[in-house]
Amino acid sequence: MNAEPPLLLLALDLAGTFAFGLNGALTAVRAARLDIVGVVTLGMVTALGGGIIRDILIDSLPPATFGDWRYLAVAAASGLVAYALGRRLDRLAGPIIVFDALGLSLFAVTGASKALDYRLGIGQAVILGAITAVGGGTLRDVLIRRIPTVLYSELYAIPALIAAAITAVTVRTGVYGLPAAIGAAAVCFVVRLVGVRFGLNAPGPPGARGDVPGSGDRR
Amino acid sequence: MNAEPPLLLLALDLAGTFAFGLNGALTAVRAARLDIVGVVTLGMVTALGGGIIRDILIDSLPPATFGDWRYLAVAAASGLVAYALGRRLDRLAGPIIVFDALGLSLFAVTGASKALDYRLGIGQAVILGAITAVGGGTLRDVLIRRIPTVLYSELYAIPALIAAAITAVTVRTGVYGLPAAIGAAAVCFVVRLVGVRFGLNAPGPPGARGDVPGSGDRR
Amino acid sequence: MNAEPPLLLLALDLAGTFAFGLNGALTAVRAARLDIVGVVTLGMVTALGGGIIRDILIDSLPPATFGDWRYLAVAAASGLVAYALGRRLDRLAGPIIVFDALGLSLFAVTGASKALDYRLGIGQAVILGAITAVGGGTLRDVLIRRIPTVLYSELYAIPALIAAAITAVTVRTGVYGLPAAIGAAAVCFVVRLVGVRFGLNAPGPPGARGDVPGSGDRR
Repeated sequence: MNAEPPLLLLALDLAGTFAFGLNGALTAVRAARLDIVGVVTLGMVTALGGGIIRDILIDSLPPATFGDWRYLAVAAASGLVAYALGRRLDRLAGPIIVFDALGLSLFAVTGASKALDYRLGIGQAVILGAITAVGGGTLRDVLIRRIPTVLYSELYAIPALIAAAITAVTVRTGVYGLPAAIGAAAVCFVVRLVGVRFGLNAPGPPGARGDVPGSGDRR
Repeated sequence: MNAEPPLLLLALDLAGTFAFGLNGALTAVRAARLDIVGVVTLGMVTALGGGIIRDILIDSLPPATFGDWRYLAVAAASGLVAYALGRRLDRLAGPIIVFDALGLSLFAVTGASKALDYRLGIGQAVILGAITAVGGGTLRDVLIRRIPTVLYSELYAIPALIAAAITAVTVRTGVYGLPAAIGAAAVCFVVRLVGVRFGLNAPGPPGARGDVPGSGDRR
Repeated sequence: MNAEPPLLLLALDLAGTFAFGLNGALTAVRAARLDIVGVVTLGMVTALGGGIIRDILIDSLPPATFGDWRYLAVAAASGLVAYALGRRLDRLAGPIIVFDALGLSLFAVTGASKALDYRLGIGQAVILGAITAVGGGTLRDVLIRRIPTVLYSELYAIPALIAAAITAVTVRTGVYGLPAAIGAAAVCFVVRLVGVRFGLNAPGPPGARGDVPGSGDRR
């Protein structure tokens, strides 16, 4: 279908898929207390959503998800691992936030670099990196009826845009590679976690306080 | 636009479109008490959503829906029929469940067989069959703000996966045809209805009991 | 990527993008009281959603949004303008409704005319015009968890269908041009505003009265 993707893109994409899969499935266990089918489904939607949206928008169809069995396998595996783990862990809020930040960081990098591979401009690649990064989590939130994190949390889209911008600039200047990719993802990851740690999120809508979960640990 | 699809695919696809259209429109009458425009709109989204998602993901664009006027005609007709019918029927819960199961079964078969026509692998075809089957209903639930059935009902995705798997195997072994297609759909249909009848659904999220309608008859 | 679009299509598309961007961002300020990132994000989703859905469905990928920097620039600018404005205005309900009607009207025209450019049939072009028109607002409503306007408001889809039909007929009869486009959009705009002014909306679902905001001015 599609040509074999570059190894670096594939590796980062699968790592992001795994992280978001764990996040989505743990969210299903914690926030909605779904059963195994629901847990694995929400894990797979979260894991694969961002990449599928990216591939549709850059006209790389069928999406990598369906052209390459490794994506489906990794996404399904992450859901099963999270289901097994989630029933044992006492506190899920920490891992959920960390895996979300990890997926966000990795997908911002892969989204921007793949968009440039498909000859989109730098500005578009940065936006597409951010869309890839926030896409899966947004689908997750819509399905379990939460206001998507990207709308009420200031430091969610911004670190993704930063990582995508670093990626796009390093690709264009020819210095992109494993170190640049990890550096860009690390910046996003740290900014996101610092934002969560120090409560730098923008306040949620006042009239809908109970609508914006995820700040406290309910479990 | 696209070449004329095989007759069997077309017939099953239109039957599934009609069943899901009735389901979506009756749901609009019952759950959300929408007016005629809303009823027909929700019917068409439910009817066409799964097939459109499938056609985007396998890169069969524009979707069959827009390349072939019969899809739009059948979807619109189903919405109008359901609107006329829904105002008369006393109890809608039964037909809603039956039409949903019917659409689910038919779209699992057409999704998997069309994915194989577009040269996707067996595993991918099975997943795509399930996505086609649950896609329209998931859009329906998101639009009227219910947690999608696929997330909380154990026996919703699983029968769709079974029907898609039977379809994929029979296509690959060369025995696919009307009997195999009907057999695969029938298995899904029966498993789904048995699950509903004997309450084999996974429990909904405890903290959100009112969020998961559809088990009792509110009308 | 794509060839340069006709000037008329581009101008109407950008005007619709700006109107919907203002609408989405003001909605974010008013209904959900989001912070600047959320406001600009919701503005961009509302502004770009309809056109992206249209371009996916007619197989014009990557969408104009990503092939032409002016779309992203206009969408981002509208979000920022609305953020600056929204904090000063006392009453937002009026502008929100007017900008929504404006975006609806312009996108119905561009959706139908672009679908015909891509050789779809007249019926399909009319439906695609309506989908383009209601797409961005539907994504907006789903993200902030409102029942989409298109489902409960009778005079929302219908004026969009009328404008799309006028556009399609004038394109096919060769009289399409700036006057025809503005005429079609004006009909939609007037019908929509008359509907809002005289309360011609269909009643929302009775059991969910609080779910259907937008009729009264809460600010």
